[in-house]
Amino acid sequence: MTYCLGIITQSGLVMAADSRTNAGVDHISTYLKLFDFSQSEERVLLICTAGNLSITQAVIAALQRDLKLPDGINLHNLPTLYEVARYIGGKLRSMEEQDRPWLQKDGIDFQCNLLLGGQIKGEEAGLYLIYSQGNCIQATRETPFLQVGETKYGKPILDRTLNYETPLAAAAKCALLSIDSTMKSNISVAPPINLVMYEANTFQVQHSLRLPVGDPYLVQIRKYWETSLKVAFEGMPEIDWHPQATNPKG
Amino acid sequence: MTYCLGIITQSGLVMAADSRTNAGVDHISTYLKLFDFSQSEERVLLICTAGNLSITQAVIAALQRDLKLPDGINLHNLPTLYEVARYIGGKLRSMEEQDRPWLQKDGIDFQCNLLLGGQIKGEEAGLYLIYSQGNCIQATRETPFLQVGETKYGKPILDRTLNYETPLAAAAKCALLSIDSTMKSNISVAPPINLVMYEANTFQVQHSLRLPVGDPYLVQIRKYWETSLKVAFEGMPEIDWHPQATNPKG
Repeated sequence: MTYCLGIITQSGLVMAADSRTNAGVDHISTYLKLFDFSQSEERVLLICTAGNLSITQAVIAALQRDLKLPDGINLHNLPTLYEVARYIGGKLRSMEEQDRPWLQKDGIDFQCNLLLGGQIKGEEAGLYLIYSQGNCIQATRETPFLQVGETKYGKPILDRTLNYETPLAAAAKCALLSIDSTMKSNISVAPPINLVMYEANTFQVQHSLRLPVGDPYLVQIRKYWETSLKVAFEGMPEIDWHPQATNPKG
Repeated sequence: MTYCLGIITQSGLVMAADSRTNAGVDHISTYLKLFDFSQSEERVLLICTAGNLSITQAVIAALQRDLKLPDGINLHNLPTLYEVARYIGGKLRSMEEQDRPWLQKDGIDFQCNLLLGGQIKGEEAGLYLIYSQGNCIQATRETPFLQVGETKYGKPILDRTLNYETPLAAAAKCALLSIDSTMKSNISVAPPINLVMYEANTFQVQHSLRLPVGDPYLVQIRKYWETSLKVAFEGMPEIDWHPQATNPKG
């Protein structure tokens, strides 16, 4: 599995991804899942990938190949972020068209989802989730985060601490906590963690981090968070039991 | 969906369940999913159900029917908790045998899982998860909780606060927090919450609670927990960014 998330706030974007892939528990590897296709001063484009690795790698390779061609559309000449999302969705579709029948025959999961976050000059910053089918949805003020991969463990912390007005640095910490909660409960998600924070309207990724296994900050926040939860837990009001009165009978 | 969990500690058992069922978002109902089949002073038997409602209801009905028959095995005469778990698994198998082909034809999910917690005189307290296939596993000191249904949202809080030595009253609060985290992040899990706490070797369920929608304690712990998380979150150490140095390139 994998866990990637993107957060959009009034002041910018946070994108984060773990690096674990697995094809069964006896085939666990480490792969980069956060890719920066930005064009300095012009556009910021960050892509996170989850799902079938051969397909997501092929999509990333196709995006890179198009950038090297003298003509044709590519990540750097499409005029809007929505068109970039659709273009990536098109790459996904064409890879699935090629490989799906072969994978399906052997019962191999060919699904994958991508996140696209960024900003193109003349537009607001935006965040999209591109589905395996090539269609996409956009994060909005009401739902300022999107997740792909192993999404459930890390959702409660986002639901409880995050909104569109959250300061960007806090959103970045929230993303790390969400990934850490997932790693604690599910071995299919693991470091290195890649984290990028983008301040809207700067058109430059100025904050980017790779946290490997045992990174002191990762260790520190896990310890801090566990201690904080334990303290909070110990202070929880006692349950007022009403013995028997409402005993559910079989 | 549904979320039920059982916790076993050195001093007893906690079992908890929500009450929401859904067959699509336009068919949401409320059903009891925690059943008490205890026999006062002799044995405590608590069952939680998740999955296809027609099958779990049929299983519960079959268990009740056997109890009324003059002969034959039933929940009150089987000598060990393991045999009770296998007997329930057998009921599950026979219901699936009857209904599975008909459900499968229309692509309806017939899977369900049950939790069985309790204690029979002469034995230690125990906790089992009975799979849709009728087989079962037992919770142990190393993994003192078992979950069925929508399990992922509520797992981080268990992983971080619970172990076999946790006092029973704290384990009960932990179960409620786990359900509350799930309810906050997923609309397929909802009150009333049924909660039972059993002190080992008493052979009597003395603490049992039903928390309906808007219950003051549920409201109180949600507010308390959210405030505590926000305070903890605000105290989180700042990220030490190393700009550019580790920027992942697409």
